[in-house]
Amino acid sequence: MEFPVISTYLRVRYAETDQMGVVYYANYLVWFEMGRAEYCRQMGFSYASLETDGFRLMVADVHCRYKAPARYDDTIRVDTTIRDLKKKTLTFDYNIFNDASGQLLARGLTKHVCTDREGNLTRLPDAFVRCMATSHHRPQP
Amino acid sequence: MEFPVISTYLRVRYAETDQMGVVYYANYLVWFEMGRAEYCRQMGFSYASLETDGFRLMVADVHCRYKAPARYDDTIRVDTTIRDLKKKTLTFDYNIFNDASGQLLARGLTKHVCTDREGNLTRLPDAFVRCMATSHHRPQP
Amino acid sequence: MEFPVISTYLRVRYAETDQMGVVYYANYLVWFEMGRAEYCRQMGFSYASLETDGFRLMVADVHCRYKAPARYDDTIRVDTTIRDLKKKTLTFDYNIFNDASGQLLARGLTKHVCTDREGNLTRLPDAFVRCMATSHHRPQP
Amino acid sequence: MEFPVISTYLRVRYAETDQMGVVYYANYLVWFEMGRAEYCRQMGFSYASLETDGFRLMVADVHCRYKAPARYDDTIRVDTTIRDLKKKTLTFDYNIFNDASGQLLARGLTKHVCTDREGNLTRLPDAFVRCMATSHHRPQP
Repeated sequence: MEFPVISTYLRVRYAETDQMGVVYYANYLVWFEMGRAEYCRQMGFSYASLETDGFRLMVADVHCRYKAPARYDDTIRVDTTIRDLKKKTLTFDYNIFNDASGQLLARGLTKHVCTDREGNLTRLPDAFVRCMATSHHRPQP
Repeated sequence: MEFPVISTYLRVRYAETDQMGVVYYANYLVWFEMGRAEYCRQMGFSYASLETDGFRLMVADVHCRYKAPARYDDTIRVDTTIRDLKKKTLTFDYNIFNDASGQLLARGLTKHVCTDREGNLTRLPDAFVRCMATSHHRPQP
Repeated sequence: MEFPVISTYLRVRYAETDQMGVVYYANYLVWFEMGRAEYCRQMGFSYASLETDGFRLMVADVHCRYKAPARYDDTIRVDTTIRDLKKKTLTFDYNIFNDASGQLLARGLTKHVCTDREGNLTRLPDAFVRCMATSHHRPQP
Repeated sequence: MEFPVISTYLRVRYAETDQMGVVYYANYLVWFEMGRAEYCRQMGFSYASLETDGFRLMVADVHCRYKAPARYDDTIRVDTTIRDLKKKTLTFDYNIFNDASGQLLARGLTKHVCTDREGNLTRLPDAFVRCMATSHHRPQP
């Protein structure tokens, strides 16, 4: 299976900065969340509908390496792809850029396990898995 | 009915500051939430158990007046009381202080309506209402 | 002076929800911040450049009335205008809508005082004041 | 050098939960921040004073493994120690527990580089380094 790279754009909020004058480090994980939500949406299976169907993608593991700071009002691009897709687990991969300069700000990944509403480990739904890979993807104009 | 003033203490987190070098204004509403949770807990009816019983206190209205900034690592005291308690609504009143200097930093209030799990307006449970007033309260050592 | 209404759009993040399944109440204040930043940007004087010039718009007062909940993945529209503009103070007015349904979710306002870097009250810069009113505004295509 | 394990306690805020009914994953990084701040404070050199002296501990790397969810109103214990202390870098190590049950909820680490106010890499101040190791530490009653 091949997985495309999907870009998500956002503008840095004042709320996301800290007294060092840069974006507080935990907020990059929120941007990861936006990146994987947009990935799923563009591939045709929104994370919201996955939850409606009774599934949860619990985060099991996160890693982030910070290269350069993001600042208030910067336009940010989050490039998201899937690094690994198994029966019950899924790993997203992220590269975060300052969109104006093209500078890489951070790289990271999140590993998820699929559970039902009660938190029991379960298989990712087939329809979701099929949507995640490239053959399905038709780039939007 | 009379309502005591209950103090809650917290230390300012780095995450709560912004690039102005002070606490970001929305975070005072999080401190209000901590204040009313502590009020309920000390009065003997935790907000967590209210939710377990199927009730929600939806915020209908919030007001906050900012007097002086809070800064990283400051110890903060949130003094909370009830300003108004009706059959289906409840208004908490807050005063936020720098605990070391005693300076008033902010004042505010939140008005809540009681709903069931589905969001339908409902009466506050009697046991909760009884707990909220002073006659019931025994100060903790 | 007349002030236009400027719309800002955002999609609700998972991070913004709470265990009630709706957006946590303090996050509306973050959306207010996005609304007033977009207002200033569209009027030709970004808040970021105001800070670079040595000015701060400290929040003195906030009020928000919650009408209906926002939920994960909803598209939100924040309509922002200026209610009052004086020599040293400024009041923004916000209406927050579910953009798909058009339902009003919340209304609010923030009052700001202008200070210098050290926090001393000062006059709003003339160039900023001129930009904020309608005569200056040219709607973007 | 030996490094003690310092415990920090906190109660889960409603603001920290998400619609899955558990603590949103980015908030563990905020708890890490509280853990390392408390570590430094107990060792006699607060992070706040390090910043006043003109130093910054920029986060270069973060990792977190999630084992079990934290929930609203839980009391959380963050056990923090130093895994590695070099001339210009520092790695903190964290174990997060449900304090009532003793269950391990998450493990993680943050790697920091020391910079001056302008963001240039610099050596950790000697006085800070001396404070961080055990020989200096006198447990508080």
